[in-house]
Amino acid sequence: MLDFEFYTPTKVFFGKGKQKDIGKIISDYGYKKIMLQYGKGSIIKSGLYDEIMTSLKEYNIAVVEMGGVEPNPKIEFIRDAIKLAKETGVQLVLAVGGGSVIDAAKYTALGAKADCDVWDFVTGNQKPTTALPVGCILTIAAAGSEMSASAVVSNMSINMKRGFTSELNRPLFAICNPELTYSVSPYQTACGITDIMSHTIERYFTPCEPTDLTDQISESILRSVINAAKVVMKNPSDYESRATIMWASSLSHNNLTGCGRINALPVHQLEHALSGEFDHVAHGAGLAVLFPAWAKYVYMHDISRFAQFARRVWGVNEQDDKAAAEAGIDAMADFFKSIGMPTTITDFGIDQNSVERLASLCTFGKTRTIKSTIELGFDEIKEIFKICY
Amino acid sequence: MLDFEFYTPTKVFFGKGKQKDIGKIISDYGYKKIMLQYGKGSIIKSGLYDEIMTSLKEYNIAVVEMGGVEPNPKIEFIRDAIKLAKETGVQLVLAVGGGSVIDAAKYTALGAKADCDVWDFVTGNQKPTTALPVGCILTIAAAGSEMSASAVVSNMSINMKRGFTSELNRPLFAICNPELTYSVSPYQTACGITDIMSHTIERYFTPCEPTDLTDQISESILRSVINAAKVVMKNPSDYESRATIMWASSLSHNNLTGCGRINALPVHQLEHALSGEFDHVAHGAGLAVLFPAWAKYVYMHDISRFAQFARRVWGVNEQDDKAAAEAGIDAMADFFKSIGMPTTITDFGIDQNSVERLASLCTFGKTRTIKSTIELGFDEIKEIFKICY
Repeated sequence: MLDFEFYTPTKVFFGKGKQKDIGKIISDYGYKKIMLQYGKGSIIKSGLYDEIMTSLKEYNIAVVEMGGVEPNPKIEFIRDAIKLAKETGVQLVLAVGGGSVIDAAKYTALGAKADCDVWDFVTGNQKPTTALPVGCILTIAAAGSEMSASAVVSNMSINMKRGFTSELNRPLFAICNPELTYSVSPYQTACGITDIMSHTIERYFTPCEPTDLTDQISESILRSVINAAKVVMKNPSDYESRATIMWASSLSHNNLTGCGRINALPVHQLEHALSGEFDHVAHGAGLAVLFPAWAKYVYMHDISRFAQFARRVWGVNEQDDKAAAEAGIDAMADFFKSIGMPTTITDFGIDQNSVERLASLCTFGKTRTIKSTIELGFDEIKEIFKICY
Repeated sequence: MLDFEFYTPTKVFFGKGKQKDIGKIISDYGYKKIMLQYGKGSIIKSGLYDEIMTSLKEYNIAVVEMGGVEPNPKIEFIRDAIKLAKETGVQLVLAVGGGSVIDAAKYTALGAKADCDVWDFVTGNQKPTTALPVGCILTIAAAGSEMSASAVVSNMSINMKRGFTSELNRPLFAICNPELTYSVSPYQTACGITDIMSHTIERYFTPCEPTDLTDQISESILRSVINAAKVVMKNPSDYESRATIMWASSLSHNNLTGCGRINALPVHQLEHALSGEFDHVAHGAGLAVLFPAWAKYVYMHDISRFAQFARRVWGVNEQDDKAAAEAGIDAMADFFKSIGMPTTITDFGIDQNSVERLASLCTFGKTRTIKSTIELGFDEIKEIFKICY
């Protein structure tokens, strides 16, 4: 077990109808004026917007609105939000949505307290020292941003999708009501399930000694999500399964599954290049294609761990480690397919000519390698992308 | 999955040599004057005291000392500590030790900011609104107090050992270095293991619907602790096993294993009466005796869950649920015995005449019942204690 720090200060309010407490929760923290961020308006259609505004009004909380966050949130939107946040002096940014909305709120919160442009934090040119608090009402179980220290942003002027991790990014509170995810489409539900599983699996396969406790917790989360996924794809309004997936989304990415291990998300790095370059690729769908490809490329370098993964998570019964490892990768790929995920990059309408460009984006123009079961450089990443076709 | 709140703000610094960072850590939080609490002086013999003082001195942190915390910390000691904390104006209470020292620090921190006597918080006559921050350097993996919201105190003038739970009790930070537990005796190590397992098992058996995710996480923690216990009882300086047990101690009682479930610790309630009345009974040893007795008394009321516990945690292969449940309870009792725990109350030199008195203490003089697989009143508790002989 490697040395680690564990810090998850986010207060989680989990359960039915919890969004109706938003006014009281914010008021209890002492805030009077907030910025409300949300996506393309589905929360208005669903009635969630009205529920939130009613509760905020009841507690006399002033609201500055900034709807219209896009999937893969854009730096331009965030810059506008920061400007408005500074002008209006809001005390907290409330995100209502999934990972994209929460990530936009995190950057807004960082930028509202900074003198520099927030992109400077992403590039590492500047380091933030403080941020506004962020609260969230989760409507899609996927990114785990509701408890995580990371946030992703797209800078379309340079076709770059990048993440930034800081303890300042951990939300103050997260309201998690599984009922709010009943209306998430089967495709988006499956994307979320893939993302949740990836957060756990990627930490599971970082190159370090086995960590029995963290390994077993990770395997537990994966088995539970797989069980729940099978139910929820048939019955989208099954509370218990939606709840399992939602709570797993937080636990998969609050770093519980990385304790004592090297923390790296190699497949996420590959996927950020893909959906950064091709905006129509949903993050989870990109992961579903890349994951089996990555696994096929690297598993020979850590067969016993892939075999453990196969046996404990997928119930593979093979005696031979290599055969077990391969069966586990197949089981994972079959599972993603079974919940409606694409299986090749071609499914996104992307041809082989993009491989070089994607590998270049991944490596920031051949200037970095990515930690994984084996170190991934430009050539290795190209090979992985080729397997995706 | 029942509605829940999850709030674990404690920052954990986990790993080798981390205690040497104590001065920097406290300084980074901005504190200049602290109260240092510890037990009977083993930290002086081990050299830990010197390491801590060196680091604190390096960062110019003034120290008010209050050593001598006893196992099952006493209200009189705490009252003295509170008086001293108020007189000296310390800004943080640093506990160096195990659960007893951390619990004493928690009460000191509550009392230092209160106008009333801290016992009033325990009885519920008063409610705290603020507390000093508590930091800890853990030297025994057991109570989980380093991340928990609870604290136990003994009031010997009325022979009462009671717990008090409040979010104010969550420590600000916890330094967890498994190496510091190498010198813990086999008996105390086994007591700790029993306590850790109890925190998880008791939440596992509260009377509510199965919660697949929380169930599987709990089973994982238990299996890991059992694996690690077998190693550590043979080799007390095995880092990986000590680390597993130490991290499990935090995860077992920070409420991860209670998410979505009714939270109650019935066997702990019984044990507090036992070690409250008989000060020579170590908490973990008391649990090791009471646990199988409690299980034997209640399992028929939730056979399928006891069978699941037996199969998933203890690897029981029985097809029949009742036989599996019984085999699981036997496996648990055998395990506690194998690590050197007592098997009957007689092992503590306590005769059957105490049963009435213990049941009365447990029920606060027949004024309360205890939530469990079945509700436990005075008569049920008497029966459980009888099974312990």
